[in-house]
Amino acid sequence: MNSPTLAQTLFLTAQDMASMVHELGLASTLAGLADAIEQDYGRWQDFDKCARVASHSTEGVIELMPIADAKTYAFKYVNGHPRNTRIGLPTVMAFGVLADVDTGVPDLLCELTLTTALRTAAMSAVAARALARPNSSSMALIGNGAQSEFQALAFQQLLGIREIRLFDTDRAATAKLMHNLQPTGLRLLPCASIAEAVRGVDIVTTVTADKTNATILTPELIEPGMHINGVGGDCPGKTELHPDVLRGAAVFVQYEPQTRIEGDLQHLPADFAVTEIWRVLRHEAPGRSHDAQVTLFDSVGFALEDYSALRFMRDAARRLGYGQWVSLIPELSNPKDLFSLIQPAAKPARPMRAAAQRHELAPA
Amino acid sequence: MNSPTLAQTLFLTAQDMASMVHELGLASTLAGLADAIEQDYGRWQDFDKCARVASHSTEGVIELMPIADAKTYAFKYVNGHPRNTRIGLPTVMAFGVLADVDTGVPDLLCELTLTTALRTAAMSAVAARALARPNSSSMALIGNGAQSEFQALAFQQLLGIREIRLFDTDRAATAKLMHNLQPTGLRLLPCASIAEAVRGVDIVTTVTADKTNATILTPELIEPGMHINGVGGDCPGKTELHPDVLRGAAVFVQYEPQTRIEGDLQHLPADFAVTEIWRVLRHEAPGRSHDAQVTLFDSVGFALEDYSALRFMRDAARRLGYGQWVSLIPELSNPKDLFSLIQPAAKPARPMRAAAQRHELAPA
Repeated sequence: MNSPTLAQTLFLTAQDMASMVHELGLASTLAGLADAIEQDYGRWQDFDKCARVASHSTEGVIELMPIADAKTYAFKYVNGHPRNTRIGLPTVMAFGVLADVDTGVPDLLCELTLTTALRTAAMSAVAARALARPNSSSMALIGNGAQSEFQALAFQQLLGIREIRLFDTDRAATAKLMHNLQPTGLRLLPCASIAEAVRGVDIVTTVTADKTNATILTPELIEPGMHINGVGGDCPGKTELHPDVLRGAAVFVQYEPQTRIEGDLQHLPADFAVTEIWRVLRHEAPGRSHDAQVTLFDSVGFALEDYSALRFMRDAARRLGYGQWVSLIPELSNPKDLFSLIQPAAKPARPMRAAAQRHELAPA
Repeated sequence: MNSPTLAQTLFLTAQDMASMVHELGLASTLAGLADAIEQDYGRWQDFDKCARVASHSTEGVIELMPIADAKTYAFKYVNGHPRNTRIGLPTVMAFGVLADVDTGVPDLLCELTLTTALRTAAMSAVAARALARPNSSSMALIGNGAQSEFQALAFQQLLGIREIRLFDTDRAATAKLMHNLQPTGLRLLPCASIAEAVRGVDIVTTVTADKTNATILTPELIEPGMHINGVGGDCPGKTELHPDVLRGAAVFVQYEPQTRIEGDLQHLPADFAVTEIWRVLRHEAPGRSHDAQVTLFDSVGFALEDYSALRFMRDAARRLGYGQWVSLIPELSNPKDLFSLIQPAAKPARPMRAAAQRHELAPA
């Protein structure tokens, strides 16, 4: 499925992605994403990295997350608008692009709303495989919103978690999760409080959506040996953990300069020691040092996971035949002659105008 | 032409844009873009601004250019790869997005290759209207590549330029320009050297493409009263003007922090005084002070012009019925239930798979 012309872009809509993930299967998608993330974190030094560029407003945030290696440039557009659910929109929506570093041609334009939930869960599982106690079998899941099922499944598939204890201030969210995950064989236990959910588990995942400095986990809830997978504290003013929870743990991050701004780490002093997870994955730094240690992955979402997810989805789409070729970039017989595009004599071969074409792309 | 659903995006391909500009007419498009740019520069303080985020490689650069006011977020993806023409691709290719600040929904996804040439020319004309001598009638155009015809037409339409003196190291580029602009009534004079082209003109436009620190204009070529429209010096290591040309002129810029990094200004010390053009457009700072003064617009391309261009093109597309609605963002009956997208029972209504759909969008 090569591009028909040098300048065309493979476009995967939200529907394409849902169909493709359905065909791939969720377990296999999560496993494939985790592999891609591990491979790319394993060559951390190959990437030109920067903190994401955020535009904050009263209702939320819109961010651009670029990253590149010598061959491939990737970026993601993503928002975070906690009140969106009130008007029927997801809190987090995203799309992204892969481009060729040597020419700048955008090769792939791709939905990333579903994919962000998948890659975030895969990243959490990659970190937990390196940090949680190997015999972990139970997890608390605090926050049962849009991303929660993906976290649950990634931990079932990739770590062997069998029991998940659930809490959300919105009981309907918990009911939705239990309905969705009923066929998985996971033991799902709704709990009346965070404390009840957390008690005795091996892993605690926090994935709440409010853009506030919340305190979902306090130090007295934390037990020796726990691994904390902190997902929802991911921009300035949006945190989930009491600072003493971080102080009592070995803290691991994706990209330190970004996490110091965006993670739960934002409440700690600049010299509070953390370890970038790529060093653990490359065995250049220790992960968990003993069974009683508390480990904490302060996940904020880094552009490298999106790079990994975009290349995984591109390869799958090529293999399975998903997507359509679109012209984001004009075709020119003489590349110095952009002007020819709008000359009367050179009226485009396929004029796109007309009410008849104002339909959705390729309806079935 | 309202969005059929809250989450859908109006998509304008390269073909759509060429057809739409053809229908609008080039003169009217340039005039409309210039008006939009003047309006938006007139409310400079409303915008959340930052320098663009660049990823440099041996062959070129890929950049993201975000900007937002309280209602609308915009960004552009744009590359600069001077050697692209050797494989039949444009040097500069771009696309962009407008999004709703209150929800993060991307409202418009739009080609910006053609549009970047149009808005760059419109921006140059807006600056020259404020800075060049009012009776200007002749211009030198150094660099006759993809953007040159648009500069020529903008200066004809918006400043009344009647004679243009042409120079390019590639004679075929000059011949192409003369062919393209033959019907415009402009007096077009090919010249054997930069010095010959520049001698006696009112305005000098430089729009060369090499990613080098070139010296297209040296101080002895500059005559009293000239306005210099320096367009091609627009990233670190890509400049066109001898530093003494800037020292001998009143220098105007779009957004000072960005131009100090990217413009011809990069060769001058940090305390070299410049004026942001919005202050002149708002009559808060003087433009040209007398007829013998040399004025210089060190244009680098700023995100605000793309914001202006995107809103102009969105409004035109809505009015004239161009574009198609696409689903970059999934439709969810319950926005907290992203997982439902990939459940067997909820298989998407319009599966996009199948070789038969691997065609271009809406062929005529």
